[in-house]
Amino acid sequence: MAPAILSTFATEIIIPVCSVIGIVFSLLQWLLVSRVKLTPDRNGPPANNNKNGYDDYLIEEEEGVNDHNVVVKCAEIQNAISEGATSFLFTEYQYVGIFMVVFAILIFLFLGSVEGFSTKSQKCTYDATMMCKPALATAAFSTIAFLLGAITSIISGFLGMKIATYANARTTLEARKGVGKAFVTAFRSGAVMGFLLAANGLLVLYIAINLFKLYYGDDWEGLFEAITGYGLGGSSMALFGRVGGGIYTKAADVGADLVGKVERNIPEDDPRNPAVIADNVGDNVGDIAGMGSDLFGSYAESSCAALVVASISSFGIEHNFTAMCYPLLVSSVGIIVCLITTLFATDFFEIKVVDEIQSALKKQLIISTVLMTVGIAIVSFIGLPTSFTIFNFGVQKVVYNWQLFLCVSVGLWAGLIIGFVTEYYTSNAYNPVQDVADSCRTGAATNVIFGLALGYKSVIIPIFAIAISIFVSFSFAAMYGIAVAALGMLSTIATGLAIDAYGPISDNAGGIAEMAGMSHRIRERTDALDAAGNTTAAIGKGFAIGSAALVSLALFGAFVSRAGIQTVDVLTPKVFIGLIVGAMLPYWFSAMTMKSVGSAALKMVEEVRRQFNTIPGLMEGLAKPDYTTCVKISTDASIKEMIPPGALVMLTPLIVGTFFGVETLSGVLAGALVSGVQVAISASNTGGAWDNAKKYIEAGASEHARTLGPKGSEPHKAAVIGDTIGDPLKDTSGPSLNILIKLMAVESLVFAPFFAVHGGLLFKL
Amino acid sequence: MAPAILSTFATEIIIPVCSVIGIVFSLLQWLLVSRVKLTPDRNGPPANNNKNGYDDYLIEEEEGVNDHNVVVKCAEIQNAISEGATSFLFTEYQYVGIFMVVFAILIFLFLGSVEGFSTKSQKCTYDATMMCKPALATAAFSTIAFLLGAITSIISGFLGMKIATYANARTTLEARKGVGKAFVTAFRSGAVMGFLLAANGLLVLYIAINLFKLYYGDDWEGLFEAITGYGLGGSSMALFGRVGGGIYTKAADVGADLVGKVERNIPEDDPRNPAVIADNVGDNVGDIAGMGSDLFGSYAESSCAALVVASISSFGIEHNFTAMCYPLLVSSVGIIVCLITTLFATDFFEIKVVDEIQSALKKQLIISTVLMTVGIAIVSFIGLPTSFTIFNFGVQKVVYNWQLFLCVSVGLWAGLIIGFVTEYYTSNAYNPVQDVADSCRTGAATNVIFGLALGYKSVIIPIFAIAISIFVSFSFAAMYGIAVAALGMLSTIATGLAIDAYGPISDNAGGIAEMAGMSHRIRERTDALDAAGNTTAAIGKGFAIGSAALVSLALFGAFVSRAGIQTVDVLTPKVFIGLIVGAMLPYWFSAMTMKSVGSAALKMVEEVRRQFNTIPGLMEGLAKPDYTTCVKISTDASIKEMIPPGALVMLTPLIVGTFFGVETLSGVLAGALVSGVQVAISASNTGGAWDNAKKYIEAGASEHARTLGPKGSEPHKAAVIGDTIGDPLKDTSGPSLNILIKLMAVESLVFAPFFAVHGGLLFKL
Repeated sequence: MAPAILSTFATEIIIPVCSVIGIVFSLLQWLLVSRVKLTPDRNGPPANNNKNGYDDYLIEEEEGVNDHNVVVKCAEIQNAISEGATSFLFTEYQYVGIFMVVFAILIFLFLGSVEGFSTKSQKCTYDATMMCKPALATAAFSTIAFLLGAITSIISGFLGMKIATYANARTTLEARKGVGKAFVTAFRSGAVMGFLLAANGLLVLYIAINLFKLYYGDDWEGLFEAITGYGLGGSSMALFGRVGGGIYTKAADVGADLVGKVERNIPEDDPRNPAVIADNVGDNVGDIAGMGSDLFGSYAESSCAALVVASISSFGIEHNFTAMCYPLLVSSVGIIVCLITTLFATDFFEIKVVDEIQSALKKQLIISTVLMTVGIAIVSFIGLPTSFTIFNFGVQKVVYNWQLFLCVSVGLWAGLIIGFVTEYYTSNAYNPVQDVADSCRTGAATNVIFGLALGYKSVIIPIFAIAISIFVSFSFAAMYGIAVAALGMLSTIATGLAIDAYGPISDNAGGIAEMAGMSHRIRERTDALDAAGNTTAAIGKGFAIGSAALVSLALFGAFVSRAGIQTVDVLTPKVFIGLIVGAMLPYWFSAMTMKSVGSAALKMVEEVRRQFNTIPGLMEGLAKPDYTTCVKISTDASIKEMIPPGALVMLTPLIVGTFFGVETLSGVLAGALVSGVQVAISASNTGGAWDNAKKYIEAGASEHARTLGPKGSEPHKAAVIGDTIGDPLKDTSGPSLNILIKLMAVESLVFAPFFAVHGGLLFKL
Repeated sequence: MAPAILSTFATEIIIPVCSVIGIVFSLLQWLLVSRVKLTPDRNGPPANNNKNGYDDYLIEEEEGVNDHNVVVKCAEIQNAISEGATSFLFTEYQYVGIFMVVFAILIFLFLGSVEGFSTKSQKCTYDATMMCKPALATAAFSTIAFLLGAITSIISGFLGMKIATYANARTTLEARKGVGKAFVTAFRSGAVMGFLLAANGLLVLYIAINLFKLYYGDDWEGLFEAITGYGLGGSSMALFGRVGGGIYTKAADVGADLVGKVERNIPEDDPRNPAVIADNVGDNVGDIAGMGSDLFGSYAESSCAALVVASISSFGIEHNFTAMCYPLLVSSVGIIVCLITTLFATDFFEIKVVDEIQSALKKQLIISTVLMTVGIAIVSFIGLPTSFTIFNFGVQKVVYNWQLFLCVSVGLWAGLIIGFVTEYYTSNAYNPVQDVADSCRTGAATNVIFGLALGYKSVIIPIFAIAISIFVSFSFAAMYGIAVAALGMLSTIATGLAIDAYGPISDNAGGIAEMAGMSHRIRERTDALDAAGNTTAAIGKGFAIGSAALVSLALFGAFVSRAGIQTVDVLTPKVFIGLIVGAMLPYWFSAMTMKSVGSAALKMVEEVRRQFNTIPGLMEGLAKPDYTTCVKISTDASIKEMIPPGALVMLTPLIVGTFFGVETLSGVLAGALVSGVQVAISASNTGGAWDNAKKYIEAGASEHARTLGPKGSEPHKAAVIGDTIGDPLKDTSGPSLNILIKLMAVESLVFAPFFAVHGGLLFKL
């Protein structure tokens, strides 16, 4: 088979160059955001006035509010949020660090034991005529890759949180100048995170491959098997990030709302509420750091899944480096495409009115998808031979480069469809959310019934989209097709994350405006940003879930290949019980996480009530509440409560594989995948819809909305109840389920050699 | 292989005799219930006074309330309920009748077309050396069996409703004499339904087999294939019964509660509420007629699944009639066992205080399970040869009779475990429901969060119980093992249904007491009966779901055999997309049914509000509300709304099988099964828990409960919201899902010959 048009040398250049461009672009965005000063400017506005300028007249000045005090207050609040978030993440990392070390040792011991810790070379698994490196080397390098993935994930999450807490007060201040300026600041900050994460993930992976190659040489089978540890590391950190962060944010949010909004009748984010700082911290550690780790995990896993299948396909056997790096090339092009796309939001157009926000974000999705389709076509035609073979459960299947182009594209476009469907079901511009809002007329019960029904219904089209991508990519290129379809969906990750991170930043900006006592017009602007942010958060979750489904199927396929299973036949008892128990795991997991949020929220409620009852003058705004205790409650609760669900996810593959063997484990993975994806989508959309139904009533932008409002009306109270119920669904249980399905699959893949040799103890007895 | 100890002649006698005993026992119970007179007795109490007598002093007389008026009022209300229910069922049957005819024609055409409507005999599918009857005969007899199953199902549901509406006012009147008397009346009435249904189902099936044999002769393969139509008929009626009845009852219930309890602050079942009759009618058409049809369907299907597998195993090949009838023998013994068990509740012991109700019902479950284990042992050792072979996807597998004993027993005991777990999670005697009640302190939102978490958690043990039964029975006797395990779970169906029907009867009795304006002490007694009934209803649903899972797996296995598929490999794109889309169907279906309940309830709310606003003197009790309009709203809504979910279930197998072929259909069935069972269990337990959490607060039986109450307190209001949300979950969506998974499987089985020949059009193109 002919080599690819692109030379090995060119490939070696393109990937790191694109990564570096991404990082530089990200730093540039940071620089632009930092031009918004958080120190009061006593010399009056500067003279120059560019298009997206930072120098227009301020609402405060028009209204005669003292500019100086507001800026100082904002800076103070931002500091408090940033400190809370940093301190939480450091506490979390201490615990996670212990886990990381223990699990690294486990990986080494389990994988080392496959050949009895022998240092001798062994026959290759797929090509018995060749000699491969010893299992002990795979154990050692898998462990290193695991640690590398874990650390990269932590850094991604941490940096995301840092920029978010750096940008929130700046967004608030920009909101004084206009909604467009605030939008650009929030969006740029999101882009910092998106590009940093995408570029960083790609670069570290690329360097790791090259370093590992120094030892492995021509044994690509062993090399890419060891690299899968990178995905496991990334995803296991994401688990704790999502679950811990999710519990943190929702314990604070639910607790703050239940006492503040419902009992004391004070607005959201009111500075008198003792849980308000914890609530804002939560947005950053849950929605930003957690989301960042999650998507980084998906990205790392789908790359690893594609690489491991490629290594035993003709790319790997013939040592065709460019073709081997096809997944990385797709991601490289993705960075450039997203870079261009970002300019459409920040520089090519300007947002002048509130209504344009939603459509600007939507355009981001469309533009990136269209451009990326072209990018994929180019990469597929220059980066791949015209035809090649792909390993397909024991046989080599001939595939053409245009087929692979279709595989990646179908994933990409399925992502867009999922995004749009999610928008339709969670944005209050459309009927579904308006119906839910309308059902608040008859109280909270009908609101909940309609909301649950909406979530269930929103599953239908995404599942068909996923099913079609699976069918197309599976038929064309087996498990490699699935893996690159997942990569296709994630190829615009930088834009996806930018949109996604924009949401919590706007939410925080609103919170800061409220706490700093700024004009209600500022709050209206940030609320508009936030409403769009709620929808984009739901879209982001839709992407995360859709890609997780594809990724875990690809990992599942790689696991099956690696474990030497030929068929996973539902009609065998071992597989079927795995399937039904696997389908149950998302429920078990959700039960744990929801209960955790509930219990932590109850503790928060007690503390907030205590403060309102015991601190004199708090309700009158004369005394300051004790924010720190609330932050501590959220921190302690989330650290403590993330352990059982974490253990469920991490231990299930180990226990099932060791005691029941690889067939049952295959069943568990398939069951968890097909059931978990439904629970995740419905939970996340139900929550998003309730949130926006509430916002719909509050905003009162239409005749219909006004008949339901205003704030404090009976329908509004019902909507608040729905919103509160949706919080753990959309921000804790739902998004954590992605990680459940991905992580179990990648863990099974990493441990596959062990299970294949020593697994199934119970049936062996 | 040696024949069974039991001779063919003895088998021919035992089955009909046991059925007739069941029917006679049922009539006897009816007679005992009918001794409670609904006409006022002006001659004072009669002289005799037996243990469970009907002649003690009445509370009304003690309190000086006029006995005459109360009895007349009760009779009137009962009449209204009975008329409403009858009229709804007749309306439903008209629509269902049209469906039945159309679908019967479809079955005939599809199956007839398999061999081009040829009347010539053909080679047998499994034994090519033999000649079997033409496909046209199978088409004709399948159609007849379908109609027979449908009619038996309708009769079962209708008779159940009749006895329930006959018994409810009688239970109310007995409650004046004591809680024990009321319990016996309600329980006996439940037993009428249970025995009638079990015995009737068995007898009709037995007669059908014998009649079909006149034509089929030695072609048992064709005979039992045609018999599967019986299961399809039973289940398709159950679909409409469950969905239509479920929408009816919950539209009325939610509508009545939202205006009555929440807005107007009048008690449940208050006669001033215009929806109150519709609400009580709903209990009878939904929980009684629907449940009856559902369990009859499960019973018919598991028998058919076992028979069809047996017909191609050594039983069928060697024409061993006794062994062939093993499933029917198990059911026959079940009737006798349940008969003895019933006497423990009605005659051997007497209930004197409220606390004994729950334990009496629990004892029913334990006694029937223990006795049945002995019964199964006897049947297995005298009704089966020591060893025999079972068809296992292409090969014959040797099985011993003790293994089959274990298969049936494991199903039976798994049922008991599911029952107990359900009780634990839905009875307010235990922590889970009390925790949910406690969470009402912080409002409806935490109540809902805790309730959802409880439902998710309650899935864990039942799934393990189901998985273990599947593993054991599958390993021992392949799909035949699964089918008889399902039969084992259903072997005590008469007792299960008696317990189950007891609930709505007590609920109605309470409603009648309230409407007739009887003493609050009567209401307390019926409330106690009802609280136990709520738990037993949840237990009944647990049984129904568990058995549905086993049944549909058995049917799925039979379908796979019939369609000639060797493996259902998850690692093929055709199967995997089926799996993920199948797992989505329960969500689609639930979205439809929940939305239907919501919309119908909104209509009901409007009507009830209209009546309160326009009928002068209604709130003061001076004018009578217009009950009929509310009954009509529920009727119309449920008839209209049951069509889309019905179509989804009925059309999916036809469309998938015809266009995508049997592999994808296998995936859909497996996916719907493993996902649906989780949704069903969690929905039904969440609903049950909310209902009992509310009752826990209302009853105020413990120190803890009293801190949450009384009625009208904030926690109680939160609990009412939870209860209302739970209504469609536990009585519409949840239980309908059993039918979704069973019905798709049995329909696929019946149409398997067609799909195998003409299916998969899309892939053929």
